[in-house]
Amino acid sequence: MVDNAEFSQKFSVGIVGLGLIGGSIAKRLAKLPNCAVYAWNRHHNPYEEAERLGITCVEKVQDLAKLRPNVLILCNALFAMPSILQEIAPYVDKSRTTISDVGSVKTLVREQVAAAGLQDCYVGAHPMAGSEFTGWGASSAELLENALWALTVDSSTEFWRVCNILQMIVSLCKNRAIVLDDETHDKSAALISHMPHVVATALANVLCEQSNRAIALQLSAGSWRDMTRVALTDPQRTRAMVSENRHNTAKLLRSVISELTFAADMLDQDAEVADNSEQAFFAKAQSWREYKYQQRNSSKTNANQSDAENGRLWKYDSRSNWQQELLESARLGESIIALSGFNTNESPQLLLRSDASLSNL
Amino acid sequence: MVDNAEFSQKFSVGIVGLGLIGGSIAKRLAKLPNCAVYAWNRHHNPYEEAERLGITCVEKVQDLAKLRPNVLILCNALFAMPSILQEIAPYVDKSRTTISDVGSVKTLVREQVAAAGLQDCYVGAHPMAGSEFTGWGASSAELLENALWALTVDSSTEFWRVCNILQMIVSLCKNRAIVLDDETHDKSAALISHMPHVVATALANVLCEQSNRAIALQLSAGSWRDMTRVALTDPQRTRAMVSENRHNTAKLLRSVISELTFAADMLDQDAEVADNSEQAFFAKAQSWREYKYQQRNSSKTNANQSDAENGRLWKYDSRSNWQQELLESARLGESIIALSGFNTNESPQLLLRSDASLSNL
Repeated sequence: MVDNAEFSQKFSVGIVGLGLIGGSIAKRLAKLPNCAVYAWNRHHNPYEEAERLGITCVEKVQDLAKLRPNVLILCNALFAMPSILQEIAPYVDKSRTTISDVGSVKTLVREQVAAAGLQDCYVGAHPMAGSEFTGWGASSAELLENALWALTVDSSTEFWRVCNILQMIVSLCKNRAIVLDDETHDKSAALISHMPHVVATALANVLCEQSNRAIALQLSAGSWRDMTRVALTDPQRTRAMVSENRHNTAKLLRSVISELTFAADMLDQDAEVADNSEQAFFAKAQSWREYKYQQRNSSKTNANQSDAENGRLWKYDSRSNWQQELLESARLGESIIALSGFNTNESPQLLLRSDASLSNL
Repeated sequence: MVDNAEFSQKFSVGIVGLGLIGGSIAKRLAKLPNCAVYAWNRHHNPYEEAERLGITCVEKVQDLAKLRPNVLILCNALFAMPSILQEIAPYVDKSRTTISDVGSVKTLVREQVAAAGLQDCYVGAHPMAGSEFTGWGASSAELLENALWALTVDSSTEFWRVCNILQMIVSLCKNRAIVLDDETHDKSAALISHMPHVVATALANVLCEQSNRAIALQLSAGSWRDMTRVALTDPQRTRAMVSENRHNTAKLLRSVISELTFAADMLDQDAEVADNSEQAFFAKAQSWREYKYQQRNSSKTNANQSDAENGRLWKYDSRSNWQQELLESARLGESIIALSGFNTNESPQLLLRSDASLSNL
């Protein structure tokens, strides 16, 4: 169990990798008087500027573990994960430090963490923030403004470790978070990112097969541009990303194929015969459209609504299945916007904000 | 044959329907001293403002035909096309007036024009310009700034009628044009607009089937937003648009299904086994990516290049297959930017501008 006396001291975060995400977290936390920020990067080029910003840089990655930070967050490239985990494992003070990461696939990282014997102190994290650029030079404290983080836990995760991460994300970074299991996270990432990347690539592939491709491109406007934009990014990077979440992506692609087969069959019928099918196909996602319209309106009108009006308090109970309760909360469109009672004798409490329009989806 | 003496007088255009496109063409042409603009609209609400802008508005749609304009352009809704064609047909002076339209599907309109007995004087047109708004109030001369028009002809089209339309588009509106057959146009529109609309709808439909849809939407960012944007527009409007080009759209959907099946099969294999398939799938559209990168660069560096540097002169020869030559030119990425010699005793000449990066696609 965490040492509460020690915890009331300055909160400390160790950051492995000062790239776009790691650099942005470091820059955001380094602005705060109540947070100590340590960092390591393979190349030491960013160290001079980082030190000037109040980030303490260390020589070796194991030095970060030796500093016993409350959170040690792995922001390195995924391919380097196994070797870095091996290097830090002997030095992690498990009674104090929670290990986390920022990878976009969570099942795989948990397996890698377990292989290094660190599964007991791991909580996965995936901040929804990014840019088309990479590296320390592109990182900024503002990149995380209003970011939502997905945290991933399993049945053996200790709740105080989730609170540790929430201290960093919610209390310090002023971001929001939801708590998921690895599978739900990876399926969701496949749905809103990996599958769409493959579909965009498929559209570009189909274009290249057509003899009228130059004419079509001359005539193209917003719909083609938007549908294929993500296929313009380095296809090897897309391939690596999709490959890590391959079975979830494949399953969703088969659902898309099923929808498109329905549509192609109905369009190959006469319009009169296809009437019912067309009604069904074009109306199916109406609840999603309603959500998007509501979201547009609420972003205009509810901006000044207080959190209390939209929020509810959730209290930790050691006898309850908190993993399931927080997953259910995320399914209803709630996100965690504040943490309290963590360093007191009371039970930790979370303030959950609800997005009413999501709950009707 | 057109009366050249009369032609050297003021060029005249009759516009049926003062909606977004018709209104924008009228406003653009009405600014020019060498063009007479006549218009008719079902409701006469826009007439007062239109007259103030120099547009002569008429009581009945057949009055437009009676004025014997050089071009009579049908900018009405597609469903009204048959009845309007019936109303104007008896009054069209075929020796002088060329009929055109602005519909996004061309095969269907040519059939409707033929049903009214006006096929001899018809050249199809489709301006690549639009906005999410509709109606006279949203129309503007600037909507057509830099627009590319697709003109559609068949083997019986007279070349002087194409020149008539080019007078309006290129000489007066200062827009560009390409000349296609109906089939190439409709296949291209299916490729860059109608098929992508169905794919975006399919993605939204798949989302709505998933139990983690609220979580996925919370995590969603740019890729999901861009891939589904066009599915947010009124699905009944999308349905009507796709329905008019149903077989071309269905055929392309089957090509997309084939690409996605390849991708799903490869992702359901182990990464090592799928290596070659993944290489092929993600590299297939590389020529399109190269084109897009080149386009980005050329828009920066070549903006000041003169048309002469990029252009070539094409001369009309009555013995040649000009339809095929101009279609081939469009396939190579060329577009028509000027017309000369039309009202003289010389053969008409077109100045074609080439987009070098398109020719490598």
